[in-house]
Amino acid sequence: MMNNKKYHRGYFMPPEPSYDWVKKEYIDHAPTWCSVDLRDGNQALVIPMSLEEKLEFFKVLVDIGFKEIEVGFPAASETEFEFLRTLIEQDLIPDDVTVQVLTQARDHIIRKTFDSLKGCKNAVVHFYNSTSLAQREQVFKKSKEEIMKIATDGAKLVKQLSDEAGADYKFEYSPESFTGTEIDYALDVCNAVIDIFQPTPEKPLIINLPATVEMSLPHIYAQQIEYMSKHMNRRDSIILSVHPHNDRGTGVAITELALLAGADRVEGTLFGNGERTGNVDLVTVALNMYTHGVDPKLDFSHLPQIAEVYERVTRMKIYERQPYSGKLVFAAFSGSHQDAIAKGMHYRDDHHTDDWTVPYLPIDPTDIGRVYESDVIRINSQSGKGGIGFIMEQNFGYKLPKVFREQFSYYIKEISDHKHKELKPEEIFDVFNHEFVNLNAPIRLVDYHFVRGEKILVTLTINFRGEEMDITGRGNGRLDAVANALRKGCNLTFDVVDYNESSLSKGSTSKAVSYVQINDCIREDRFGVGVDDDIMASSIKALISSINRAIIHKED
Amino acid sequence: MMNNKKYHRGYFMPPEPSYDWVKKEYIDHAPTWCSVDLRDGNQALVIPMSLEEKLEFFKVLVDIGFKEIEVGFPAASETEFEFLRTLIEQDLIPDDVTVQVLTQARDHIIRKTFDSLKGCKNAVVHFYNSTSLAQREQVFKKSKEEIMKIATDGAKLVKQLSDEAGADYKFEYSPESFTGTEIDYALDVCNAVIDIFQPTPEKPLIINLPATVEMSLPHIYAQQIEYMSKHMNRRDSIILSVHPHNDRGTGVAITELALLAGADRVEGTLFGNGERTGNVDLVTVALNMYTHGVDPKLDFSHLPQIAEVYERVTRMKIYERQPYSGKLVFAAFSGSHQDAIAKGMHYRDDHHTDDWTVPYLPIDPTDIGRVYESDVIRINSQSGKGGIGFIMEQNFGYKLPKVFREQFSYYIKEISDHKHKELKPEEIFDVFNHEFVNLNAPIRLVDYHFVRGEKILVTLTINFRGEEMDITGRGNGRLDAVANALRKGCNLTFDVVDYNESSLSKGSTSKAVSYVQINDCIREDRFGVGVDDDIMASSIKALISSINRAIIHKED
Repeated sequence: MMNNKKYHRGYFMPPEPSYDWVKKEYIDHAPTWCSVDLRDGNQALVIPMSLEEKLEFFKVLVDIGFKEIEVGFPAASETEFEFLRTLIEQDLIPDDVTVQVLTQARDHIIRKTFDSLKGCKNAVVHFYNSTSLAQREQVFKKSKEEIMKIATDGAKLVKQLSDEAGADYKFEYSPESFTGTEIDYALDVCNAVIDIFQPTPEKPLIINLPATVEMSLPHIYAQQIEYMSKHMNRRDSIILSVHPHNDRGTGVAITELALLAGADRVEGTLFGNGERTGNVDLVTVALNMYTHGVDPKLDFSHLPQIAEVYERVTRMKIYERQPYSGKLVFAAFSGSHQDAIAKGMHYRDDHHTDDWTVPYLPIDPTDIGRVYESDVIRINSQSGKGGIGFIMEQNFGYKLPKVFREQFSYYIKEISDHKHKELKPEEIFDVFNHEFVNLNAPIRLVDYHFVRGEKILVTLTINFRGEEMDITGRGNGRLDAVANALRKGCNLTFDVVDYNESSLSKGSTSKAVSYVQINDCIREDRFGVGVDDDIMASSIKALISSINRAIIHKED
Repeated sequence: MMNNKKYHRGYFMPPEPSYDWVKKEYIDHAPTWCSVDLRDGNQALVIPMSLEEKLEFFKVLVDIGFKEIEVGFPAASETEFEFLRTLIEQDLIPDDVTVQVLTQARDHIIRKTFDSLKGCKNAVVHFYNSTSLAQREQVFKKSKEEIMKIATDGAKLVKQLSDEAGADYKFEYSPESFTGTEIDYALDVCNAVIDIFQPTPEKPLIINLPATVEMSLPHIYAQQIEYMSKHMNRRDSIILSVHPHNDRGTGVAITELALLAGADRVEGTLFGNGERTGNVDLVTVALNMYTHGVDPKLDFSHLPQIAEVYERVTRMKIYERQPYSGKLVFAAFSGSHQDAIAKGMHYRDDHHTDDWTVPYLPIDPTDIGRVYESDVIRINSQSGKGGIGFIMEQNFGYKLPKVFREQFSYYIKEISDHKHKELKPEEIFDVFNHEFVNLNAPIRLVDYHFVRGEKILVTLTINFRGEEMDITGRGNGRLDAVANALRKGCNLTFDVVDYNESSLSKGSTSKAVSYVQINDCIREDRFGVGVDDDIMASSIKALISSINRAIIHKED
């Protein structure tokens, strides 16, 4: 039952408007990225990853270029503890990579977390407590002061244990459920924690402001972040981090606007895995930046391989329409889109430019390891001549003449509509060969012989309805002579309307292909195609193919 | 190969900054919704919908409450033409619903579109042409003036044919690829079209500004829309529409910001189906509004049923993390989330409030037809006592005492971790029954008899390791007497630490359930549960269960 009256906006506006960010146009440099795939992502799986699966995923994250990777909540379960120990003891953490561990701001959990880190060179100890109004009232039943004390007690213990361990760890504090927290209260809590750590520009502290649950429009989160950034103590010694979720489907947007608003760092996951609607998809944020000409400092040039590992170890499926990574995101079925893409690709070739401006494709699919032929132009009943022509040229090397391309496209669309299915390039090519190329019934070319005089004389040996015969004809050109021979010898009426010939640009490039259009008095655009090693043979076969179609499909 | 240098931001900034929208906090009323599921959505399917499937989907859209539905591109194919004719001829369009047809701004296509509309009462004729720099240069190879003439010629023909038909159609014009068009040029084209139609507040014109491809950050699109809205001729006679796609994963965000920036109308699809990364998901935009306390004027109270039809007729799968509609978007596996949700639900009960403020759940799942028991609290190795306790109470009516809840949760988590799978509520309940309830070996209760004197005397008939015997004991209370009888009769050493009893709050409410905690000298929190019609029997069985566990699991 829908009853909007039971809802009240549960977020809090910053005490003063703050939208300097709106004046910035785009994100001009990459933030520090932190992957939380192995923690927030793992925690949201129906079946959490095994140790071996986590190790494989960790390696993928390192290869992509992540320098900060949250590896788990080691105090929460044996598996998480064991994973971190394996990374440390088997020396699997590269020197330039920092692992991050999550802990609640509670005494015994912090202690166990430090136990898990023994021998680790580079680590971020990330501690948190919930600060939202709802959690204070409903879950913890504690006052603002008591909740702040959880944070500051945690901070003191983290600092103390780190000093005792003589370790050079970095620290991160999150006021969890920040988006449901009064902004000035969140600021007070963060400042109290900052005052304990006394960070410096050389040894900064990470303050992470999670959109644990998305609660507002994107521009409100940006204002919250900007306000916090402006009013935080020792701002030059703070790495301001965001950790966006996606409850309102705007996780990418709030991340981007937060980066304009002052965030230095982003926590998220590949493909947006994570609690409920997921964490922000770092693939999308990074590649959005990339398509604006900015180096994201993450390498997604082999996105399909990354996707394969991801789907295998998480047992999640990447959504077909997930930006950049989804199976269908480059697919153009509709005629006008296919046409524009094909023309855009030709434009690039013609202008010898590497610049990417192809309509309907915000990124060159090959930059991220996608395959143009199978991922982009796809043929069904919605498709048009541009796409089908493109497939014929790109995949098989046939440049169909314009009128024929249109005719052939209708033919293919009807088959797709009738069969109610997508047609793969090979199926299209089969139809093409079967219906138009080197048709040899009822007329089959057996041999031909030209004699040049004032006019050209041809002697054709053909098999016509099973009977071999020689027929002759004269003409100004060779094809003209062949047409005359066929008219007279087979008692046919037709005009040759158009003739095109080229070499095949793919496969056996030595082959010649000819397209002949005749008017057979029933239709004026009857096409035939001839393919042969020899140019002349290909054109005779094309003409005979068109005539054979005229005889077979009289009523078309 | 990643090479960011080949990309240049392909959108255009408005000639002057325009961000009045940033001062607005939220969307305070529903826009006009137009579903393009049957056109843009259908066009992006691997297998487009059949006529029957479209008819079924159309009915779903009407039931949700859409008053404007784009039904296709009738001039593009027979199937689309036929679908519209079927709707009209079988009188399937309710009086308060307007169907919309799409046509390119080309003479013969417009004419065929009008043919398709014959007999239709309420229609929007939606014509478009591409205006972007890339399409002008690469696809049409036409000047700005020539492209504008396509729009104005189209407008004139649409107006003329409508006049000739004597029909009271509405009109919509889209400068397609608006996001790649110079803003002032797009404005000029729109104004030229507006000048032809001369719309009035009584007979307004729809001007639709599609993010055919998302190209900029969300706040740039908002500025573009606001600039257009401010400078458009006859603004009070224009319905300003947006048609967002999702190439940068920010389709919902640009829609929301565009609504703040002046848009009156949104074209989109259910679940974000549509070309490539999809159109904007109207379910998300509407329910985002709903969770801010605003009536979206669309009814998604039966979202799972809508999803079922959608998945069947489009052959697409809704992504597990798609906001509101995805299978996992309410799922809480992690202990702390489960605990907070369980407490939030109790808080609502305790405070007798319908207001929704439960942590981690931005919407009450039941508002949109989701099932709390199976969709929200889900148990795997990441789960905690809050979640498992909640399942036991919510699904089966057992309120486990705090210490036992914690112990049982570890037990369940270990099973899940070991089996590497999620445990369904029934599986958890099976473990509970098998491991803790009415255990009757080696000791089985056969009968009992109390006599009240100064102390209470009990005679228990039990079967102990296959041998039936009567044992007696005295105590201050009945359970005390039973414990003494068992200590003496079976030669056991234990203390009763705690005892709880309640009626079952689910299923057979006449049943009594008792929880007994004993200290057996090996562990001080050995639990047993007894269930019986009779209170006394349930507590004796609970005690015997705890003793049986102590004997069986001596070494635990």
